[in-house]
Amino acid sequence: MSLTQLVEDFSALLGPGGVLTGEDVSSRAAGIWRDDFIEAAAILRPKTTEQVSSILKRCHEAGQPVVTHGGLTGLVEAAITQPADLVLSLERMNAIQAVDTSGRTMTAEAGTPLQAIQDEAEEHGLQFPLDLGARGSCTIGGNISTNAGGNRVFRYGMTRAQILGLEAVLADGTVVSSMNEMLKNNAGYDLKQLFIGTEGTLGVVTRAVLRLQPAARSHQAAMVACKGFSDVVMLLNELDADFAGTLSAFEVLWPDFYQMVTSERSGNSKPLGDYPIYVLLDTLGSDQDADKSRFEDVLGSKLESGLIVDAVIAQSKKEIDELWRIRDSVSEVFQWGPAMIFDVSLPIAAMKAYEHQVMSQWRADFPNGHFISFGHIADGNLHFAASVGEDNEANRTVIEKTLYEPLGAIGGSVSAEHGIGLEKKHLLASCRTPAEITIMKTLKQTFDPNNILNPGKVFDI
Amino acid sequence: MSLTQLVEDFSALLGPGGVLTGEDVSSRAAGIWRDDFIEAAAILRPKTTEQVSSILKRCHEAGQPVVTHGGLTGLVEAAITQPADLVLSLERMNAIQAVDTSGRTMTAEAGTPLQAIQDEAEEHGLQFPLDLGARGSCTIGGNISTNAGGNRVFRYGMTRAQILGLEAVLADGTVVSSMNEMLKNNAGYDLKQLFIGTEGTLGVVTRAVLRLQPAARSHQAAMVACKGFSDVVMLLNELDADFAGTLSAFEVLWPDFYQMVTSERSGNSKPLGDYPIYVLLDTLGSDQDADKSRFEDVLGSKLESGLIVDAVIAQSKKEIDELWRIRDSVSEVFQWGPAMIFDVSLPIAAMKAYEHQVMSQWRADFPNGHFISFGHIADGNLHFAASVGEDNEANRTVIEKTLYEPLGAIGGSVSAEHGIGLEKKHLLASCRTPAEITIMKTLKQTFDPNNILNPGKVFDI
Repeated sequence: MSLTQLVEDFSALLGPGGVLTGEDVSSRAAGIWRDDFIEAAAILRPKTTEQVSSILKRCHEAGQPVVTHGGLTGLVEAAITQPADLVLSLERMNAIQAVDTSGRTMTAEAGTPLQAIQDEAEEHGLQFPLDLGARGSCTIGGNISTNAGGNRVFRYGMTRAQILGLEAVLADGTVVSSMNEMLKNNAGYDLKQLFIGTEGTLGVVTRAVLRLQPAARSHQAAMVACKGFSDVVMLLNELDADFAGTLSAFEVLWPDFYQMVTSERSGNSKPLGDYPIYVLLDTLGSDQDADKSRFEDVLGSKLESGLIVDAVIAQSKKEIDELWRIRDSVSEVFQWGPAMIFDVSLPIAAMKAYEHQVMSQWRADFPNGHFISFGHIADGNLHFAASVGEDNEANRTVIEKTLYEPLGAIGGSVSAEHGIGLEKKHLLASCRTPAEITIMKTLKQTFDPNNILNPGKVFDI
Repeated sequence: MSLTQLVEDFSALLGPGGVLTGEDVSSRAAGIWRDDFIEAAAILRPKTTEQVSSILKRCHEAGQPVVTHGGLTGLVEAAITQPADLVLSLERMNAIQAVDTSGRTMTAEAGTPLQAIQDEAEEHGLQFPLDLGARGSCTIGGNISTNAGGNRVFRYGMTRAQILGLEAVLADGTVVSSMNEMLKNNAGYDLKQLFIGTEGTLGVVTRAVLRLQPAARSHQAAMVACKGFSDVVMLLNELDADFAGTLSAFEVLWPDFYQMVTSERSGNSKPLGDYPIYVLLDTLGSDQDADKSRFEDVLGSKLESGLIVDAVIAQSKKEIDELWRIRDSVSEVFQWGPAMIFDVSLPIAAMKAYEHQVMSQWRADFPNGHFISFGHIADGNLHFAASVGEDNEANRTVIEKTLYEPLGAIGGSVSAEHGIGLEKKHLLASCRTPAEITIMKTLKQTFDPNNILNPGKVFDI
């Protein structure tokens, strides 16, 4: 069957507005942070799981590549298309179907924006704790397909931990409905794991049952400074015990990053002077007065013991937001021109030496470059950014080699939370064994034998 | 190759003490709570992952069934063997290989008892929060293979949530080493999920990287009474917010259960009089004085609002243990003769009606029977026990029908935490769809094409 014929058939199947072609395709950005546009034969916009199933069945039979689109906020080119691909956009499957306040679950279609889910939970006095900068654009289906991380992983876990049940459609159109609502269900294999974090290569997520949490009633935050990275690790372990169950973020900022995000240009204030290393920490609790007093007491004791050498405690919601804005001003790195932003993970015990090695090598290789490092260290997750003037291939190769090459030997990962997509495909073998990659390919060939679902992403078959 | 020849070859491979046969096999109980004995051609006791790999490779080629044994504490006959099976026991792979106090991880071989892991964590000022009654006998490999639940799932999650990395051996001897140590790693598919909760049917878990938590510094517990189940649900939701992040258990006891476990015969005291329903609740915090005072204040406010009608707060570690002993005196049900103990899960919203329906029907069917109900309701998990005199097949069929039949329609599960094994195999189709079971079988056939790993468990191929 020709692609033209397929698109015509899908127009009939999906009705008015169901299929976009021509300029309606090419006028859409290929990603919300990209300046190129979607190239694809058509964008299919089903409204139901049954329609998704019909589309995939036909594409499976025809060997037609399909790339599923959520909010296009990914950072590793996992949603990039070729001109002869079909885009399956879940933008019209965006209903919140149910909220169960006794079981504290929400059932939502995959195209629902994360922000809408957070808002709906809040209206019921609950929260959906997954949170990331792209919350207004990203969809829960995309969050699931990429196992999104974000700001509260340390406390609540990655997206995987928030998903109780899932409905997905396999390449051949089979609908797999595993819409479990319970925390405990050991009746047979937990099939939803096949679709979480596999970047749309094993199936299309259409609906999910989400675990909700009680809304936090109090919020404390502080920026503190330490004498060095070893103290930061000790501080993390002490605070996690001190703030039992309520420590929600522990973000480390090295000085180059701190200077950049508190420069006059940034518009942020500079809460602390010059120190070897900084931590933004955050707790979510239940009793504002008691929690605030405890927060101050605990930080006071760390000042006394010398584990922290300076601290600023936010005194209001506004001041909490200001501290977070410092941490979130990563885009300041673009003041020096094009910049590359990286996402790796590694054991905390190896971080100090690794960060030092990468930054020293970069500075030696590019004396005029700008480099910053920061991270969710409690999650084993470091981010780096590098700006060396022109963003050409030769520079990128040198910079990436310095960053990625040491990871294999120390048990690190080339992708902490962004995934593999196309951008990191060449790096997969540096942190996963041949046996692991063989098993990934076996899963792909088993569930998508015609290689139609997001083909060429994560690995090549 | 004959089974005799295989056993001889494995004796050579594993050396002295590596293979048990004859009385060394038949004198071992088939399970720690069973009164029958292991029937199998031999028990293989490898010491290394390489030996496990060699064994499986040979068995794969020979089509020889292999049943992996951990601590034999399972409750659904998932480790039962046939006379011509080989048992692969991981009892000599029981080393704790590493503890990383900065990353707060532990690396342990699969045969390590859970208790040894808990103790080792404690020695480092940390805790491994997975906890169940069988802690002294069960092994971490078994906990992983069955995705064990237990007493602290509400706070810390099932075993799945405690596992960062895993090493497993496939049926054909391929060693899959995914010994990740980070909370965040999105580099390709998360293959460890294939081996968690699949009851030894897709591979043999040989090692794991475990996530450790800070040790709790304070512990509060109380037994409270409510006017009815709806109040219990409201109480759960309020307390989860009130005790932000520290509520660790919320165990519901219906009156028949409460009477049984506080009878004179039980040796337990009776902390509260007669009420419609009871809750044992438990928090783990960081500051004994502050947490105790908050615990009392919060429960006081619930008494004032009428959400709870009576309460006893434990005043010491001894009193906490006494409250838990009440909850754990389930074996009192055997005072009336043989008893069946059940484990199901269902949405909290459906629990009140379901519990009432099951208990009423049982009492109508067996006017002289004894029936109790209790559960980890926050996890959606209810347990029931039924004692109706003789434990014959006819009784069991009637009793099970009443319990399991309603679950499908309300989105419940025939196994919350025990798994499927052999015992619940006939029930799998009542709570999983045909498409789901087909996919389970596809996974099994893909990774164990000769059906040698724990064959006939969970489902038939």
